[in-house]
Amino acid sequence: MTNLELNILDLSLNELLRTVNKTESILKDQYDEIKEFRDIILTARNLRFDNGNDATIFLAGSGRSGFVAKFFAMRLMHLGFHVYVFGETLVPPVHDGDIILFISKSGGENAVTDSIESTKLENIKKSKSSPSKNNMIFENVKILSVCGSFDCYLASHSDAKIVIEAERDRKSTKEESERFDSLGFNSNELVIMGTGFEDSALLILDALVVEMMNNLGLCEEDLENNHENINRPKVSKK
Amino acid sequence: MTNLELNILDLSLNELLRTVNKTESILKDQYDEIKEFRDIILTARNLRFDNGNDATIFLAGSGRSGFVAKFFAMRLMHLGFHVYVFGETLVPPVHDGDIILFISKSGGENAVTDSIESTKLENIKKSKSSPSKNNMIFENVKILSVCGSFDCYLASHSDAKIVIEAERDRKSTKEESERFDSLGFNSNELVIMGTGFEDSALLILDALVVEMMNNLGLCEEDLENNHENINRPKVSKK
Amino acid sequence: MTNLELNILDLSLNELLRTVNKTESILKDQYDEIKEFRDIILTARNLRFDNGNDATIFLAGSGRSGFVAKFFAMRLMHLGFHVYVFGETLVPPVHDGDIILFISKSGGENAVTDSIESTKLENIKKSKSSPSKNNMIFENVKILSVCGSFDCYLASHSDAKIVIEAERDRKSTKEESERFDSLGFNSNELVIMGTGFEDSALLILDALVVEMMNNLGLCEEDLENNHENINRPKVSKK
Amino acid sequence: MTNLELNILDLSLNELLRTVNKTESILKDQYDEIKEFRDIILTARNLRFDNGNDATIFLAGSGRSGFVAKFFAMRLMHLGFHVYVFGETLVPPVHDGDIILFISKSGGENAVTDSIESTKLENIKKSKSSPSKNNMIFENVKILSVCGSFDCYLASHSDAKIVIEAERDRKSTKEESERFDSLGFNSNELVIMGTGFEDSALLILDALVVEMMNNLGLCEEDLENNHENINRPKVSKK
Repeated sequence: MTNLELNILDLSLNELLRTVNKTESILKDQYDEIKEFRDIILTARNLRFDNGNDATIFLAGSGRSGFVAKFFAMRLMHLGFHVYVFGETLVPPVHDGDIILFISKSGGENAVTDSIESTKLENIKKSKSSPSKNNMIFENVKILSVCGSFDCYLASHSDAKIVIEAERDRKSTKEESERFDSLGFNSNELVIMGTGFEDSALLILDALVVEMMNNLGLCEEDLENNHENINRPKVSKK
Repeated sequence: MTNLELNILDLSLNELLRTVNKTESILKDQYDEIKEFRDIILTARNLRFDNGNDATIFLAGSGRSGFVAKFFAMRLMHLGFHVYVFGETLVPPVHDGDIILFISKSGGENAVTDSIESTKLENIKKSKSSPSKNNMIFENVKILSVCGSFDCYLASHSDAKIVIEAERDRKSTKEESERFDSLGFNSNELVIMGTGFEDSALLILDALVVEMMNNLGLCEEDLENNHENINRPKVSKK
Repeated sequence: MTNLELNILDLSLNELLRTVNKTESILKDQYDEIKEFRDIILTARNLRFDNGNDATIFLAGSGRSGFVAKFFAMRLMHLGFHVYVFGETLVPPVHDGDIILFISKSGGENAVTDSIESTKLENIKKSKSSPSKNNMIFENVKILSVCGSFDCYLASHSDAKIVIEAERDRKSTKEESERFDSLGFNSNELVIMGTGFEDSALLILDALVVEMMNNLGLCEEDLENNHENINRPKVSKK
Repeated sequence: MTNLELNILDLSLNELLRTVNKTESILKDQYDEIKEFRDIILTARNLRFDNGNDATIFLAGSGRSGFVAKFFAMRLMHLGFHVYVFGETLVPPVHDGDIILFISKSGGENAVTDSIESTKLENIKKSKSSPSKNNMIFENVKILSVCGSFDCYLASHSDAKIVIEAERDRKSTKEESERFDSLGFNSNELVIMGTGFEDSALLILDALVVEMMNNLGLCEEDLENNHENINRPKVSKK
């Protein structure tokens, strides 16, 4: 086995790059929605409640989308937000005025309820009609989502969303097709499972962090100063 | 604040894409080393020990590099490898013949020892000279790394490595410079902290998964069948 | 505030100890069921499948019951079992012949489905009637539980269970009542929320580990040799 | 194997209970120190910094001691403290005035530096002599510990500590010795590894939660209202 060349690494990476490069057009096509998405997050720094705290941002995602959520959560903390990830040890209760951000390719009702332990979004956003102390009333909880289609359950229940379709629509050249055939490789599997969605979501959210850094009047050093400081190696910048 | 346009989201995303697109040249420039990197992982499926188990692959990383490690770990599991991530609840002992893969931009001695709880690589790979039962002898533990420079501690102690330099060498156009000035934005901060390294590492490793899928004679459906199956929404493929 | 004595620490600890000491009678009263509980776990080391692996044990629990699950999971690993905890990074699919152990005080349908991401036990144990490839058929998955009542959903769906009722039935002395009154303390809150259940569950399961250690012909050193070995301080025993 | 009785479950549980019951005398013998331990935690709710936040409490522990840390961290959150656990996704920087609580049986320098990623306590508490912006100055960080001996590195560097020695000093009766012999069981292994320490630490800290609940003028319902509220089953109290 160790004599094998790198059979399709180049084509797989090339196809993954082609997929994530589409985020530039997503940004243009969904400009207003992404602006709204950003604004909802930014308002978490402005709202002041009785206890003097900012609104809290909760991140939800399963599997590798959950890792994307953690990537973004850490940067939100660096930006100075109060942020938690469902499924971690420490998750406070959601209060009215808070924000829940879901990352889910399928965006199906099941996927969403998985992420937040089987509570439907309808229940989270239920009306004032049951104002007793024992019932949650979240009429002002904002739902954000990064999902894989415009018509999924999650998209239709979100206050703002970023949709990454990550379709597999690649056409192989004749030369490539022969190469795939000789390897017994299905050319439709150059990017597998949710990879295109997850990696695109990460890149868009990482750019959004820089956007918000500027919006909030912060610079890179401010974010570094909000990073865990116990025994972190100093980062030297060029 | 909510009247703000998306000030620099487009330029930040564009610059992040420019950074990750450099992975194509990394692949060409480090072809032999990446081949060796892959081969060491593949051998974990071949080695058979007395107990009939495959070699185990341990992933190590701190912070967001740790999330990259988790992304790759999950796919290694899908490929059928025995894999663990340092810092999780369940981490078995490392045995001779196992593999440790580090993901660290700085690759400094401190960063590495952080990732695996202050054991130096010298100790992990120490010689046979102390063969008593109470001492670990790991002469055959293979060290793999994804790191940010060719001359860091981690790179110099690895059996195979992938180096992602992710330098910030962008030149702004005159128009862009004026835009940055008007926003009070430092153009060197379009991609911040370790983002360029982390996102590039994720993309390369995700492509490597597809490469190994083919090497092992597997297809996408095989990987899906190795995914957690309790209440996962069915993924329909186009 | 710093001049306060330790108001009720002694009574709270005393009451918590009284609660956990009841585990001795649980052990007597549920002897046969606990024996069955143990036997189901032990069989995971005996069953051999086509791929030569043992059966896998999956642990499920939410909140602090989830930490009890992690405590036990680590010891099961030390005993040599293949074990995973739902919610961690790496969770393989459940296969027929595997074991799922739930830890939940309420044991309600909601609590259980939370723990394993909204799959009902009925679905996990569904019959052979739908043998297509896309459906899970788990007729031989064993369900174990540690729960807080004999008549909860979880108990009624388990192949073996340990029930820890942890009732709050303390009677205060006259002297204690006066002390509580002077502090404005509700004597019914000496042990709060699920604490009595969780701590009792931990103690019973920790004893069960030693029982199984002996059943499997292992000693303490064998378990230590299955513990993470990277930079662990040597434990000296008296 | 399935015909085996429960060989030593009763004696193991009995011995574990004997160990944890010793916490009552720990409480008496270390009254003043535990009072100081509590007071340092309580002050985290009083201190106000420039940004209007309370002091933050950081929990550190490895392996099963790390789970004890998570148990206590969750309750501290329920009590209204700002609390984080090293090793989780979200860990902010430590600032002057914050508190770090270590849970470690050995309390050795290595164990401590493992828990917080190789920073020595000397460095955390280093003096004002290097007041540049890039250096951490933590002269007012308080170190708390729950450890296994009075003379370990951790104990000697703590502002307040709870010491749980959890010695194995059991004497077997003649009848028990015969039973152990017939089973080939080492009576010194009725409680293994760190179990006695970990379970005792959990019980003491759980009682301390109730003590602080009263100190802060809170009741059980207040803590429940600080628990994650998304899809938690309602807890009915007797």
